[in-house]
Amino acid sequence: MYKERPMTPRGCLTLLPLGAEKKRWIEDRLLDVFKRWGFQEIVTPIFEYLDILSLGIGSELIEKGYKLTDRSTGRLMILRPDITPQVARIAATALSSIRPLRLCYALNVFRYEEEYSKQREIHQVGTELIGLKEPEADAEIIAMAVEAIKTLQIKHCSVVVRQTGYIKGFFDGQGYDTGTVNALKKAIEKRDSSRIQELAGMKAISKKQGKRFLEIMELFGGEEVFKKAERLVESRVSEDALRNLRDVYGFLKKYGLSDFISFDLGELMGFDYHTGVSFAIFIKDFGYEIGGGGRYDQLLERFGSQCPATGFAFDIERVMEAMQNQGTGGDIGRGDFIIIDFTKDKTKAIELTKTLREKGYNVTRDIIRRNLDKSISYAKEVGIKKAIVLGSRGLKDADALIIGIETGQKEKVELRKIMERY
Amino acid sequence: MYKERPMTPRGCLTLLPLGAEKKRWIEDRLLDVFKRWGFQEIVTPIFEYLDILSLGIGSELIEKGYKLTDRSTGRLMILRPDITPQVARIAATALSSIRPLRLCYALNVFRYEEEYSKQREIHQVGTELIGLKEPEADAEIIAMAVEAIKTLQIKHCSVVVRQTGYIKGFFDGQGYDTGTVNALKKAIEKRDSSRIQELAGMKAISKKQGKRFLEIMELFGGEEVFKKAERLVESRVSEDALRNLRDVYGFLKKYGLSDFISFDLGELMGFDYHTGVSFAIFIKDFGYEIGGGGRYDQLLERFGSQCPATGFAFDIERVMEAMQNQGTGGDIGRGDFIIIDFTKDKTKAIELTKTLREKGYNVTRDIIRRNLDKSISYAKEVGIKKAIVLGSRGLKDADALIIGIETGQKEKVELRKIMERY
Repeated sequence: MYKERPMTPRGCLTLLPLGAEKKRWIEDRLLDVFKRWGFQEIVTPIFEYLDILSLGIGSELIEKGYKLTDRSTGRLMILRPDITPQVARIAATALSSIRPLRLCYALNVFRYEEEYSKQREIHQVGTELIGLKEPEADAEIIAMAVEAIKTLQIKHCSVVVRQTGYIKGFFDGQGYDTGTVNALKKAIEKRDSSRIQELAGMKAISKKQGKRFLEIMELFGGEEVFKKAERLVESRVSEDALRNLRDVYGFLKKYGLSDFISFDLGELMGFDYHTGVSFAIFIKDFGYEIGGGGRYDQLLERFGSQCPATGFAFDIERVMEAMQNQGTGGDIGRGDFIIIDFTKDKTKAIELTKTLREKGYNVTRDIIRRNLDKSISYAKEVGIKKAIVLGSRGLKDADALIIGIETGQKEKVELRKIMERY
Repeated sequence: MYKERPMTPRGCLTLLPLGAEKKRWIEDRLLDVFKRWGFQEIVTPIFEYLDILSLGIGSELIEKGYKLTDRSTGRLMILRPDITPQVARIAATALSSIRPLRLCYALNVFRYEEEYSKQREIHQVGTELIGLKEPEADAEIIAMAVEAIKTLQIKHCSVVVRQTGYIKGFFDGQGYDTGTVNALKKAIEKRDSSRIQELAGMKAISKKQGKRFLEIMELFGGEEVFKKAERLVESRVSEDALRNLRDVYGFLKKYGLSDFISFDLGELMGFDYHTGVSFAIFIKDFGYEIGGGGRYDQLLERFGSQCPATGFAFDIERVMEAMQNQGTGGDIGRGDFIIIDFTKDKTKAIELTKTLREKGYNVTRDIIRRNLDKSISYAKEVGIKKAIVLGSRGLKDADALIIGIETGQKEKVELRKIMERY
């Protein structure tokens, strides 16, 4: 055995019992919400030709992608590093006749990360709404995200909504060179106000423009942000973006969600394909966003079919971590009963087990021969709640012993009465 | 766009709406059974180091494996071509203190296949029961497989049970050279009786032995096979195997499964790690086995912990195909309602939608502006069952129109009464 070297590559997900159950519990609940909202599941291929998928992903994701050669064609393949460009490809080709398209998925993506601590396999549960430019569509996506979070019983969630068009309006027609644009964007992304002042000092941008960007970076908060943002508007692009955001918010109020929503107009999105309204989902006292998404109106045309679209995804590992932090989900995946059977003829144990399973309980049969104490500590280790013992010493044939695994409490019950109780 | 070349690598799974829903429906039902039987889900890593996993997989799977280099260590990785050796690795290391271990999974494996028509990504839902050598454990696994099939509403299923030890007993101590053993195995696998006679004619095996193997190849059918098989026994190995198979069958009868079971003592299993009782699940008039498995008592020790084990897996694509052949599952994933709303204020439509979704219905909001006929044919295309129309011409504010998408049947209903009906 190779004990001196790690047995598995770093950053790959292994989920042991209870962890895997939690993952599935989360996925099931999210997909259930999406399906009740009329979204239909799809499964995208795990391998894509690099040249095809590159049409829809930025250079950063291409760099992070795991590549290998297709043995039959010799073409380079990439393990999907992102689902949205795949969905865009499929929506623009195989599903191009159906508009709007409401799709959802629970799939993994692969991104090589330098840091040992970072996951290289990420599980996402997401949705895409393709073919609608209406603000009502943005609202549908955000409202669905909030409902999804609620079904996970996660508390203190909030959604920060952005409209990238607003801040873009302050770049357009200013004649900035590429270096200045990049420096500005970087400064804004990092909320680095001293760097903005520096750029103004260097005359890369005017003092007035510097002041403007500092003001824009402060544009976060509730509904009151709209008034402040309006006063700063200098271009049609910013004006349209603001009106669009107001319209989306109007629908969100109809969904009764104003308490969950705040705005941030000084944010530039990370992925290169986003346009218009985007959003991120945060949990109080949890450092990362657990999900987010937004509009990508220019992505489908890269695959041959111009069409507006929006969507979002949850990062399942982060959702699991957030639940853990809030101390919820501890009971997910635990077994209900273990049947410990000391009789020789197994018929009764098999019957009891069958009946309980038919009622939906998780029931383990303790086939191995060992003493009661060992079986009980085994049940504790694998997370089973109760033991039902048959044929142990001093127990009549018609009786059974029910033992609470955590409490240790014992109770003698007639075997046939167990069926009435559970 | 690259229309002259395929856009995606062959053999990779893309599941469009309704197909993906069917896959999940099947996975959910299978996992639900496994969990009620006390099996706990795990997720294995998608990448494994080739040198480590090779301890548990045969050369054929190594050849078929997709390999790539780990950027951080330079070690060769393989995309998992099989789940059982991974589970064996995890059971022998991280989970070595828990016996028995009941694990289940729904994961994909990757095997390069020459033929264009063959899938290179295979979805499996399976279970492993680790730490029990008892025949009761083999019976548990087989009984659970039968129950799993039943919940899929697949008709005419049967399980063929084998015990490889029986036929192995006829090889032991015969002094056959490797060439003869391989030729014999190949002939037996292909049920090629003329090849067996040829081998006897060439004196690679004796005439008596040739006759024996021909008789063994005929040992399939119901309970009556045991008597015939007993008469042929020549070694302790065959005798033990037969007794073990009888014991397993005894428990299967207690599970009430004798009608589903037949035996085949002339079968050699495909995978190199199987020992003892194994089985395959067949559907009448369907050419492939849809699942199977068996005992692998020597696999865990290759990862450092000697321990008996058994398990099985379903091939989900084949299950889907078998369901299709039997004409079942057509309704899976179809939407319940589309809300077509011609009013300007969307409050009523949003409320109606919310209430129906809370009751568990799949409800699509038709946000796009188009005429009723177009919305109805859209609903048909995406598989929605009923439309509820608000604010169409001639319709009072308090009324709604319910349209059966397939029947075209229209009915005027008071809006508030819809809630009582559904």
